[in-house]
Amino acid sequence: MTPTTLLEIRAIAFDVDGVLTDGSVWWGPDDQEWKRFHFTDIMGISLAPRAGLQVALISGEDSPLVTRYAKKMKIAHVHKGVRDKAAALRQFSRDTGIPLENICFMGDDINDLPAMAIAGISAAPCNANAAVLAKAVLRCTGKGGKGAVRELIDAWLAARNLDPLVVLQTEVP
Amino acid sequence: MTPTTLLEIRAIAFDVDGVLTDGSVWWGPDDQEWKRFHFTDIMGISLAPRAGLQVALISGEDSPLVTRYAKKMKIAHVHKGVRDKAAALRQFSRDTGIPLENICFMGDDINDLPAMAIAGISAAPCNANAAVLAKAVLRCTGKGGKGAVRELIDAWLAARNLDPLVVLQTEVP
Amino acid sequence: MTPTTLLEIRAIAFDVDGVLTDGSVWWGPDDQEWKRFHFTDIMGISLAPRAGLQVALISGEDSPLVTRYAKKMKIAHVHKGVRDKAAALRQFSRDTGIPLENICFMGDDINDLPAMAIAGISAAPCNANAAVLAKAVLRCTGKGGKGAVRELIDAWLAARNLDPLVVLQTEVP
Amino acid sequence: MTPTTLLEIRAIAFDVDGVLTDGSVWWGPDDQEWKRFHFTDIMGISLAPRAGLQVALISGEDSPLVTRYAKKMKIAHVHKGVRDKAAALRQFSRDTGIPLENICFMGDDINDLPAMAIAGISAAPCNANAAVLAKAVLRCTGKGGKGAVRELIDAWLAARNLDPLVVLQTEVP
Repeated sequence: MTPTTLLEIRAIAFDVDGVLTDGSVWWGPDDQEWKRFHFTDIMGISLAPRAGLQVALISGEDSPLVTRYAKKMKIAHVHKGVRDKAAALRQFSRDTGIPLENICFMGDDINDLPAMAIAGISAAPCNANAAVLAKAVLRCTGKGGKGAVRELIDAWLAARNLDPLVVLQTEVP
Repeated sequence: MTPTTLLEIRAIAFDVDGVLTDGSVWWGPDDQEWKRFHFTDIMGISLAPRAGLQVALISGEDSPLVTRYAKKMKIAHVHKGVRDKAAALRQFSRDTGIPLENICFMGDDINDLPAMAIAGISAAPCNANAAVLAKAVLRCTGKGGKGAVRELIDAWLAARNLDPLVVLQTEVP
Repeated sequence: MTPTTLLEIRAIAFDVDGVLTDGSVWWGPDDQEWKRFHFTDIMGISLAPRAGLQVALISGEDSPLVTRYAKKMKIAHVHKGVRDKAAALRQFSRDTGIPLENICFMGDDINDLPAMAIAGISAAPCNANAAVLAKAVLRCTGKGGKGAVRELIDAWLAARNLDPLVVLQTEVP
Repeated sequence: MTPTTLLEIRAIAFDVDGVLTDGSVWWGPDDQEWKRFHFTDIMGISLAPRAGLQVALISGEDSPLVTRYAKKMKIAHVHKGVRDKAAALRQFSRDTGIPLENICFMGDDINDLPAMAIAGISAAPCNANAAVLAKAVLRCTGKGGKGAVRELIDAWLAARNLDPLVVLQTEVP
């Protein structure tokens, strides 16, 4: 069997903490919680639907910030508080009708490994846990929350010879 | 045609997220949003008017933090929520009477490319998107939100043999 | 006497600021205080009890964030506002019945040195104070608040040939 | 004239933004402002009075966070909103009776240069502005807000063969 290439990928599912964020969480008074996202990744996520790439968020945490991020980025497929990420990825596959072999999963820690194992392509930021980097097919040079997500989407666009600026100026279908 | 040099630049327009900030956005409860600026860049921006350099902010986001930054730094030319940054740059050129060839634009992502293409000099932080770095005439060694803006202004002052400390001790005209 | 190895370690006591956090503290209005934790370390701490490794927090500061962290991570042994960390480590040893030689202590600054001196193994993040790095038996390649804690726990699991993912899927006893 | 050595230094005056902080400022809603300090520097500042080293803060900004920091660290000599840092340093010299040649000043930007020029020793974090690094006698390997302050105090203690842990266990006079 030949390995899946980015050209065959039609959807990407992202873990949140450590992938869309830098893995940090800021804690303050009154149980307040803060997370950090990055505009370079936000730009990447906004390019995806314009280029026909579906996006999902699959997070082990159950944070309102994931919902807020999905709302801002108009991401319809959101799984929060997930214990079994492989099951969530299968659900995303069923919901979209896109076979698992045409879905990429990007994760950074060991609870992402089962989803990475069944995805068409597994991807990880350069600062993922060592066990994750060892399994990831696509290892980004960028860090989580600081460009790894964008790097993956830029690579997906480049595989199709799509100019990101032309894509950006396309209306969302 | 000879390329524009910093000596011919009379104004600099800056993108905000990823240029004046590090591109991060912190999200907390109740839709709160935080961004990070840096005093080394703030010092640079405060030197500009004292040395006769005009400054503009051109941001794709529509954030109250841009207004607050402009107010603190006494920047009169502010464009927020901009879809077409080239159009905003042309407007800035008309408002100030400074031809585009005498204006520098600093950006970090693909939506900055059209403004970079018509500016006299295009500049980018070292951690800008790859497509932006490929087009930028002036690539800074510093990162966005951590000195790239200052580096550009210091280079502009150095091209005129202006001592930053002497400039700092000059009254704003 | 042969030196203690990770195989003999049954418990790890962690300093908080600079070990579980990056050593930073954010200050805002109204005496508010924020600290940054990291999910890679949180994952490590959550693996510990599943693998039979006891965990304690021993902090020189008296911050409500330590209590919150302990609650989230279900850490029973918490010492806050500690002047004498060696005494706190001895107390943890008595409370658990685990001899000091089977306890590892991870610290990053000079007030951690007395506890490090009596622990079975002393450990430190790579960006600990120079005097601490000079004394630490186990020097991590990761930074405090950015993976040093996880690195230590991963090493402890590896010494036992335990697969972290299998451990993660084990119920907490 | 032989240059001043750390052995002759009896007091250190610190700039705040970029020296005691990393130079960043976080802005949020309602004009809120946040800054980041570091416990490795806090430990250094707490060692100073125990070892007979006087400390001052001289800040160009007029922030309540400087007052809060001074209060936590019991720093009596605080100058805020300072336009002329050399004048503030001279005032500190008069207030303490310590000659300027026995005072070290640590700064990171050009408005610190006049104070650095009259201090017995000038010091700067490794990420200070280039013009400041060019003038600083003592260039730290650490960054502002991330250990440069501690590095300077550790060097001062080492010049006296003082053990930081012994100093820490000394009562503040």
